[in-house]
Amino acid sequence: MKTRDRILDVSLRLFNEEGEAHTTTIDIANELDISPGNLYYHFKGKDQIIAELFEQFQLALGQTLKAPVEQPLHQVFDSVEDNWYYLYVVLEELYQYRFLYHNLDDLLRRYPKLKRSFRRLIDGKREALTAIIESVLEDASRPPTQVQLSALIENMTLQLTYWLNYDRLLHDEQDAEMSIHQGVLQLLTMVAPYLGEDQIDFYRQCEAIFEGMLKAKK
Amino acid sequence: MKTRDRILDVSLRLFNEEGEAHTTTIDIANELDISPGNLYYHFKGKDQIIAELFEQFQLALGQTLKAPVEQPLHQVFDSVEDNWYYLYVVLEELYQYRFLYHNLDDLLRRYPKLKRSFRRLIDGKREALTAIIESVLEDASRPPTQVQLSALIENMTLQLTYWLNYDRLLHDEQDAEMSIHQGVLQLLTMVAPYLGEDQIDFYRQCEAIFEGMLKAKK
Repeated sequence: MKTRDRILDVSLRLFNEEGEAHTTTIDIANELDISPGNLYYHFKGKDQIIAELFEQFQLALGQTLKAPVEQPLHQVFDSVEDNWYYLYVVLEELYQYRFLYHNLDDLLRRYPKLKRSFRRLIDGKREALTAIIESVLEDASRPPTQVQLSALIENMTLQLTYWLNYDRLLHDEQDAEMSIHQGVLQLLTMVAPYLGEDQIDFYRQCEAIFEGMLKAKK
Repeated sequence: MKTRDRILDVSLRLFNEEGEAHTTTIDIANELDISPGNLYYHFKGKDQIIAELFEQFQLALGQTLKAPVEQPLHQVFDSVEDNWYYLYVVLEELYQYRFLYHNLDDLLRRYPKLKRSFRRLIDGKREALTAIIESVLEDASRPPTQVQLSALIENMTLQLTYWLNYDRLLHDEQDAEMSIHQGVLQLLTMVAPYLGEDQIDFYRQCEAIFEGMLKAKK
């Protein structure tokens, strides 16, 4: 692994675990057992490291979010499990770069250019969720009205953005995998009541997946 | 107004508008046109100001959240409008002290004692929402299962906690009143689909209130 990549890796871990605001380039150099001068040779400061990590995040999540929009949906999501695992992957990517959301207000004050990119990612989430919801609700017996549909999508987009923050606020030591699975269950709970007769089936499948995960953990 | 109260008032405004991390006691003294020594006579530092503001917030919101739990529900909320205005008041109080949520991770790192209090407030939100939902869904023709009900309440609690952050991330210049009203619409959207036949009535009333607000603004 190249030094440059090792710096990014260690920075990401320290930012996530110790807090970005509390991590200095000296801490990063110490953790890597390299001199501050060596770190400086690769990155001219923390700002540059953050910018590069954000770019990685944007690229990865942006790609993932495009998937359900670009491909014919029925080829991609033909079961509750498929939707489950897709949403799991999205939340996992958000988890990987979670420090970005921990002190977002301060981060955007220091790097105002990132605001537009964050908004683009939210647009991407909204589009992905729209595609998924349309596929799930295609034969719904209690379809939402247009106003309800856009409010539903907005609620899900918000939930996808803040679930990990919320869960972190509630639990000191939360297992990441279970936290993500619970986030998916929370998201799909919002869609379930529109399914009419199929609601019970759909939700039982969701619960079964979740309980399967809980058991596998024990 | 006493100097002590003026300090708290101005600090709250600066924290909300300029960001707490970027506001020093010198900024606060300057804004008040008093000497740093005079400020120091009342508060020994920013920490003390934050602690006191948090206590105000906790007291106000804590009281509000108890209302639907302590009083017989039908005497308090017998219409969609009542629920609407109640949720408006909750979000308004969160808006008034919004800086607390802007960089929550960093804030809790610096003041770890606040974590327990934040959790108590979340418990309070959960209890208030439970009381409201039980009242709204009393005669629901499509009642949620127990698992769905607790996931629904958790989604609403998350939404109540992060709606203002989310809206702020999306819009640079958002009218506070409209942002709060939209938050209420988003919250009630989550309950609507369980109402069966009454869903359309309920949601039309919600939309009518929201549109009334929009018109009144113009």
